[in-house]
This record gives sequence, structure tokens and C-alpha cells, in this order.
Amino acid sequence: MSVKYFDHIATNPMLPEVFDAMLPYFKEQYGNPMSMYDLGMKAKQAVETAREQVAKLINAKPSEIIFTSSGAESNNFALKGMAMAHQGSGKHLIISMAEHHSVLNTARSLEKLGFVVTYVPVDNHGMVDPETVKKSITKETTVISIIHASSEVGTIEPIKEIAAIAKEHKIVLHTDAVASAGNIPVDVKDLEVDALSLSAHQFYGPKGAAAMYLKTGQRILPLIYGGIQEGGRRAGTENVPAIVGMGKAAELAAADLPKRMAHVKQLRQRLTEGILKIEKVHLTGHPEIRLPGLASFVVEFIEGEGMLLLLLSKGIYAASGSACTSKALKASPVLVSMGVPTSMSHGSIVFSLGIGNTTEAIDSCIEEFPQIVKRLRDMSPFAKEGWGALEASGGHKEGA
Amino acid sequence: MSVKYFDHIATNPMLPEVFDAMLPYFKEQYGNPMSMYDLGMKAKQAVETAREQVAKLINAKPSEIIFTSSGAESNNFALKGMAMAHQGSGKHLIISMAEHHSVLNTARSLEKLGFVVTYVPVDNHGMVDPETVKKSITKETTVISIIHASSEVGTIEPIKEIAAIAKEHKIVLHTDAVASAGNIPVDVKDLEVDALSLSAHQFYGPKGAAAMYLKTGQRILPLIYGGIQEGGRRAGTENVPAIVGMGKAAELAAADLPKRMAHVKQLRQRLTEGILKIEKVHLTGHPEIRLPGLASFVVEFIEGEGMLLLLLSKGIYAASGSACTSKALKASPVLVSMGVPTSMSHGSIVFSLGIGNTTEAIDSCIEEFPQIVKRLRDMSPFAKEGWGALEASGGHKEGA
Repeated sequence: MSVKYFDHIATNPMLPEVFDAMLPYFKEQYGNPMSMYDLGMKAKQAVETAREQVAKLINAKPSEIIFTSSGAESNNFALKGMAMAHQGSGKHLIISMAEHHSVLNTARSLEKLGFVVTYVPVDNHGMVDPETVKKSITKETTVISIIHASSEVGTIEPIKEIAAIAKEHKIVLHTDAVASAGNIPVDVKDLEVDALSLSAHQFYGPKGAAAMYLKTGQRILPLIYGGIQEGGRRAGTENVPAIVGMGKAAELAAADLPKRMAHVKQLRQRLTEGILKIEKVHLTGHPEIRLPGLASFVVEFIEGEGMLLLLLSKGIYAASGSACTSKALKASPVLVSMGVPTSMSHGSIVFSLGIGNTTEAIDSCIEEFPQIVKRLRDMSPFAKEGWGALEASGGHKEGA
Repeated sequence: MSVKYFDHIATNPMLPEVFDAMLPYFKEQYGNPMSMYDLGMKAKQAVETAREQVAKLINAKPSEIIFTSSGAESNNFALKGMAMAHQGSGKHLIISMAEHHSVLNTARSLEKLGFVVTYVPVDNHGMVDPETVKKSITKETTVISIIHASSEVGTIEPIKEIAAIAKEHKIVLHTDAVASAGNIPVDVKDLEVDALSLSAHQFYGPKGAAAMYLKTGQRILPLIYGGIQEGGRRAGTENVPAIVGMGKAAELAAADLPKRMAHVKQLRQRLTEGILKIEKVHLTGHPEIRLPGLASFVVEFIEGEGMLLLLLSKGIYAASGSACTSKALKASPVLVSMGVPTSMSHGSIVFSLGIGNTTEAIDSCIEEFPQIVKRLRDMSPFAKEGWGALEASGGHKEGA
């Protein structure tokens, strides 16, 4: 791993122990878990062991874990599957403006099927107010989906409080814990959610394996129909090696969580302190209630794209939620909802730290970044004139 | 691989070259293809190379390949996505009784959304009659989905003829080529289909990678909404190693197809000849127009489960479409549609051969199998009394 890889929110390098656990299932143990002979049964056993490991990570029962192929699939499955299962009781859904695109765009697709969706805003820390959720509830509300922790601004949402409200109104609650599960404690019993999405490559597991927790007794319609894999709830030949890797990664994450959190937290605090010394740079998200390894900022007068390119020239990998650098070419809904001016949101920069990062790497970033900002600002007419000039010029249209 | 693994239709052992191609993408090349730096771009390039390899296997353009996680996902995506995209023009769909559960059950889920589905029967060779498809077309028909080759009886369906009919009526045609692509020539231009599903682990590639061919200009709604991966048609972080493996497996299959087909065909013919020497054993599916490596039979008076267990005791792996051995516990719709009496369908046995199988392994099966049949028949009262006795006794209910 590059020592200055600070984009763990995009994906994590896999741990060697995880790869080693997967290895036999690529080779001699190639059976299909649905086959009723030894080769198949060994594959099936491996999947069931992984199910126990993943369940343990989030304090669920193994039977409450449904394996999927990605966090996006889990989110689509949860929101759509529960909305469709409950549509006899109503067709109103509530999500927040901090949701990942896989929840946001699933909600939009449901609108086309006649569902009504309320998009609750976030405050300037990126936080959803449970009271706003409560006020949005109608007699038709059947499903609420609120992200556990934002991958863009790091804020951890008050899921437990929202769950209490949902429970009171007999509404099912899903939370997208893709960015949080395996990185901070996630306990489905404590959170009292009905469904939760998590993804292996966010906690040093493989790509291609993810899961959805579905509380015992909760109704859902499948997203993928076919065979009776995953208790008839998700068809398709199980990706055995990836599922085994997810299990191993979950086991390791559960064991090492406090250590990992402490490690990335002190690095993040060090980085944040260093970066906030630069003028006109603002932390985004909640200052305390946030993912321990995620440091997110907006830098005035310059753009995410330029920062990423110059960081890269120094071997530093980061991300940006700004329009010009994400391939989706849209302004970040969460930054907009937080009240960050569109002009300023162009200067979004996100450093997401991992267990392989070191103090030296952070210090190198702290040393390089102010120079990068200075260089870009020196090149930018807007650093002196302000963004007003730019906006008057018609630049930076969404999608530009 | 076990030398007597004759269940390649369940899954294939992966080729060592495929694993070697995947290896770097588990380790140093762990980037997310959506990231705009070198690590991400290398992953993206690897995905695009795989897209070219898969496209070449089926004579498609790379832009017409959408990666998914399984053949089941591709089938759900194709049928549901096209049905939903075209529902403004009508809500009638046509599928056959030879379809895989992932098409059959998706069709059933669409019925619940107000679609009307015609299930065209097959003849006693498991063959769909294009004229029957033609007669089923109404003004409301928008999508036809017919399997390319049956994984249960091996029959290759007359897709080209059905495509001509579909084209004439401006109806889109999907074919499930999961069992055929990579095992026999599949040319989307020649078949003139609008969409086609294929899966890597059916041609010695990894589990967790599959694809859908979607003809340029064809409309579809996503099954998984979210980010803009796969041209906005299928969200979720790409399973880079598995996709790379699928590409390599496609490249190898394209290069070796005639050799592989010749190998499994002569083994299948040898096996079929040997097995049909046993009394009261019948070949299922078309005698000639069939998957070269798939030998399928019904054995009168005994059950698939018993045969599989005794075969296994001799180290021979096979499958059965019968109710008691498939975990789905349902009588095989294709056998029922073919007119195989329910009682006889319990004696279904399927040997699917692969490139690692040898003449010696086949000969061993030919030697063992008659003894297994004899042993089971000796134990069975029905071998003398016939199945009528059994049915009168109330045994063998569906799902039993």
C-alpha cells in the first residue's frame, strides 16, 4: 500500500490474512454451495462461517445476514424491498439529504413507481435532526432510511433516536452503515434498526462481498429473484471466496476495532489541526461526532480537482466531493443541504485514513498541503476577487 | 479438481491462468475504478480490458457489456429492466417453460406488478417452437426472454428464429446464455438478440462476475441504482479482481472453444452410449442440438437422490433436476413441460462434463453407474410394481 493513501472511503487495501482465508475457495474448494455433495457442503459451511463472523461484528443473528455483491446492492435491496413489501400500508418514505447515491437514486426510482419521498435536510454539521424526521412522518409512511455515517463529511447520525421514533410509529428503519460498519462499533440491537447495509471492502475485506442485516420477522421483497440462496431472499451463485473474505475481515475488525479507531483518530486529529492552520479552510461535518479516520474540509477560492492533482504529484491520495472531481459531475447533496455555498463546495477535500497510515505520512501531508493551497490560490484570480466574480462569469455550472 | 467432477453446470473450477490474472487486483492494484488517480485508473483500465475480452467472446461492442455479480442478477436486470423501460408500450411478456428460476421467478414478480406473462411450452425434446412464440404475441407484448441452452436438459433453443419473429413485431428479445456462453459459440450479431446474460464461473472464470450484453440503443432501467458505474446502468463498486478474471476466462474460452467442445462432446457421446445401455433409462433433451458437454437422463423406478449418493460414494459428482435433490424442492418445470411423467422426473440425473475430465473418468462412470442403478432398483418395490403403486401410496408429493 502507498503509505500516503488517504482515500480509504473509496476502497481499502485487503489484509493479507483475508486473502489467505479466501485462497482455498478459488482453488480446491470450488464447489457450488447449493450442491449436495462434499465439495458443495464445504463451500456452504464456509459461507455459514462467514455469516456468523459478519453477524458477530454487528451483534446480529447469523440468520439475519443476507450476503449481497455491494453496499449499493444492499441499499437498493433494503429500501426498495421493504418499500414494496409494505406498500399495502402506505407509499411514503423518508430519507435524508446525507444519503449515498445508492439510497438517493433508489428513492428517486421509487417516486416513479408512485411512492412519495421526503428528503429531510441536515444541519450545518451534516446532522439529521430526529425531530425533523418525526415531523415528516405521515399516516402513509412505511420506511425510513438514514445513513449511519456520511462518507463525505464523516458525521455520525443519531440513528438510535430516530429508531425510537420509527418504532413508536411502527415504521421500519434502514440505515446505510457502509462507511461505518467495521470502522466504528455498529450494534444492531443497540441501534434498534430493522435493516442495515455493510460492505467488506470498507473494512479491509474484498470487493464483491457485502451484506444486509434484516431483523428476524421483517418483511422484504427480493431484488434478485431466482434460486433459494440466502433463504430465498437473494438469488445467484454465492461468491464464496469473497464471502469468506468478508467473514475474515469482519472477524479481524471486531477484534481490532478499539486499536484501529485509536490509531486513525489520532492521525486524523493531527491532520485536521495541521490543515486548519491554513487560512480560509473549514472543517466539514461534525467536529466530534464523526468517523474517527475521516478528515473533510472545504478550501476557499480553489477547486478540489487542482488540489487532488497536486497532492498526487506528491504521492498523496485523497478525494473530493466537488462537482468537477467526482465522475458523477453533480454538486454534493450533503454539502448543499449543510448550507455550504456552491462556490465553496467546489473546494471540497476529503482525507480518509486507514490502519496502514503513519504519523510520518500525515506530517508529510501537513507539510505539502499548505504549499499546494498557496500555489493554487496564487494561480486563481478568485482568491483575491472572491467567488462572486467567478459566478458572475458563468463558470462552474453544475456538471461543468 | 476431482477427476470425476461431472457437475460443471453447477460451477466450474477456475483455470490457473484466470487466478494469476486476478492476483494483482487483490493486492497492489486495490484502487477503486471510480477514483481519478493512478491506482483508480489502473483498476479502471483492467475493467475495460476485461470488457473488451468479454465483448469479443460474444461478438459485441465493449460498450454493450454491463458487468454484474451473477447470471441471476443479469437475468433479473434484463427482464425486469426492459419490461419496466417499455411498459408505456404494453405489459405483456413471453418466456418459456425451459427458463432458469432467475427468469421464471422474475417473470412471476412482474405479474405482481401488473404484467401479464405467457409461458410457452417446450416439446418433448425441451425445444421451444418459434411458431408458438409467434402465436403468443399480442399488441401488448414488449419483451420475450427465451433461454439459449437449458442447464437441465441441454437443448439449444432456436433463438435466431425467435429473434426474427421478435424483430418483425418490434419486440425486444433477451436470451439467458449463462449455460452456453463460453461453452459453445455465442454471437449476438448472428443471434440478433437485444440482450443476453452470461456468467464467468460457467466458463472456468471466477464466481462473483457476470455480464449482460445490451445492444446499443436498447432502453433499460437499472436494477441497482446509485453511482455512475457501468455507464449509470449498474451501480456498486466494481468487483475488479473478479471482472479481470472473467475477462481472462473469456479470452481463453474464445481461443480454445473448438478444442474444448470437441473434448467434452466425445466424452459425452461415450458416456451417453454407455448409460443408455441400461434398461429403462431415457435421454432428456434434444439428441443432437444440445450443449456438447451435458448428458442428461431420466432413470425409471429410482430417484435422483439415491443415485447421487451412491455415485458420490464412488467419487463421482453429478446433479439431478428432481424434486428431492435440488434444494428448491420443486419438480423441474422443463421436465414437466416436456411431458416427462412426474414419477419419472424423480429419476433425473445430469452429468455435465468439463475440460479437465478424461476418458478414464467417463469409463469409470460407465462401469459404476449400471451397478448403482441395479442396486437402487433391487431396493425399490416400484421397480417391479411400477410408480403407480408409489403414487397411490401418496408418496412423492411436490416439495416432499
